[in-house]
Amino acid sequence: MSERSLIDWLRDRINPTGFAIVGPGDDAAVLAQAGDGRVVVTTDAFLEGTHFQSDDPPEAIGHKVIAASVSDIAAMGCVPTASLATVGVGRSRDDTFVRKLAESMISAAERYGAPITGGDLTSWDEPLCISVTVLGRVAEPEPVLRSGARPGHVLFVTGALGGSALGRHLTAEPRILAGLFLNGEAGASAMIDISDGLSTDLHHIARESRVGAVVREADIPLSEAAHEAAAADGRTALEHALDDGEDFELLVAIPPENVGRLRESWTFDLPITEIGEITDADVLLERLDGSRLPLQPRGYEHEWRRNP
Amino acid sequence: MSERSLIDWLRDRINPTGFAIVGPGDDAAVLAQAGDGRVVVTTDAFLEGTHFQSDDPPEAIGHKVIAASVSDIAAMGCVPTASLATVGVGRSRDDTFVRKLAESMISAAERYGAPITGGDLTSWDEPLCISVTVLGRVAEPEPVLRSGARPGHVLFVTGALGGSALGRHLTAEPRILAGLFLNGEAGASAMIDISDGLSTDLHHIARESRVGAVVREADIPLSEAAHEAAAADGRTALEHALDDGEDFELLVAIPPENVGRLRESWTFDLPITEIGEITDADVLLERLDGSRLPLQPRGYEHEWRRNP
Repeated sequence: MSERSLIDWLRDRINPTGFAIVGPGDDAAVLAQAGDGRVVVTTDAFLEGTHFQSDDPPEAIGHKVIAASVSDIAAMGCVPTASLATVGVGRSRDDTFVRKLAESMISAAERYGAPITGGDLTSWDEPLCISVTVLGRVAEPEPVLRSGARPGHVLFVTGALGGSALGRHLTAEPRILAGLFLNGEAGASAMIDISDGLSTDLHHIARESRVGAVVREADIPLSEAAHEAAAADGRTALEHALDDGEDFELLVAIPPENVGRLRESWTFDLPITEIGEITDADVLLERLDGSRLPLQPRGYEHEWRRNP
Repeated sequence: MSERSLIDWLRDRINPTGFAIVGPGDDAAVLAQAGDGRVVVTTDAFLEGTHFQSDDPPEAIGHKVIAASVSDIAAMGCVPTASLATVGVGRSRDDTFVRKLAESMISAAERYGAPITGGDLTSWDEPLCISVTVLGRVAEPEPVLRSGARPGHVLFVTGALGGSALGRHLTAEPRILAGLFLNGEAGASAMIDISDGLSTDLHHIARESRVGAVVREADIPLSEAAHEAAAADGRTALEHALDDGEDFELLVAIPPENVGRLRESWTFDLPITEIGEITDADVLLERLDGSRLPLQPRGYEHEWRRNP
């Protein structure tokens, strides 16, 4: 297939709706950005062998790269509005693979309200590399940053954690509505999506907010996959829940006066669990016996040259 | 160097100014988007072996990926405001390479008024892949699309064309101020930056505007590099100017009533040359003897699996 005909095929499938004034086919896209004019924007790379494997199905890869990118907008408590993507694809991949990858990216982006409005598709002789940019708008008065947590704020996490490498990293859903609720209704003071692992992402919040935190081992929600992974490799399910990452659940700090409202108004078909609280300093894990020890950031916070 | 310390080093060098409300260090950046709230946004991938070579200096690669991306905003007649980038870098590259690459991207983006406000740096075992997203704002009443050219409109091109592979593709400057002038003062009806080659990019305008065009061989500005490339490979300088691409000059259609004003008010230290006009149908080259033949899009409009 010629690049022209592949791009024509793509353009027929990209019918940007919503905020797109000018979509694919020009030098740049033009978006009407509703709300107060602020633009929320995130970009992430997804590389074969690191973020997905060469034999993962194209539908799963396409879903993941969009879901993981939209998850960053959800973690700001904002609304995704548009996406752009670049794809560098090896010449050894057949056209069917490319079409399925593109279709899954397009449909996932539409489903999350952020239709793809532009991008770039190039062939090369190397493994698949994908980059996704997602724009969003500020729907509540302010986005939720990582830096607003204060001592005494209560830590919650959505869903259950651990073992994402067994498959959930490819099928996770960004918590868009939950993020909006936690921002507006629950007045979250800090929020992050768990991509690097609870232990590391909690350190990100502690670092940016200049606070500490304690999380209770007894309360951390362990996924079934965390148990499966533990049975397979001898690490504990807790370690998987703390360090695996790519759960794409939300870790959020809530001022204590808002906790009652959060509990009363939480109607999502998604667990939310209180796991600890923000403190003055040090990031600690409270063991089952009540002892506390430093919680090391053992998730995706690796030596620069080491594989995650 | 650990990824954390490299990212800290990067963050110290990224001090987003201008439109950034929230810069690096959170799940997403937040930008104040001035103007009427519309957002112009473009994303491009740059792959080792295709868009640059493995032994190109990191300073040159960094400049190019930003300049080429900003050029898309310039071709809309809009103002760049912010950039984001993802970089996947081989573990065989040393830290100095990565730092120089990052520094050149950061300084180029600042120079063009679009400071880097977010991104993602990952190591892998494959060649360098970079993706750049640039946002912009609409400073004149409307952006200039590819689709507004009408028969009788006059075609101009900035600068001189051809032979970019000899080096200029790495050093080109995006024509931001010229693009703004051509939009506002000169009332351009269609505009594109020449990345795929004049022949192909003229076809892009013809296709999107549903028109034809004729360009005159005698008037196409040939760069010195086009002559050098011709001397080296036996193709003509004209062929290089028509088909090489990556000139990052502007190709623009101007309504005839605005041509006088363009000529009077053009004060840039940059040539602008009338090369032809928009017609009803067919994209033609007028030879020196006055004969006309179809102008084939022989630039970067290749078979999907062939290298550009």
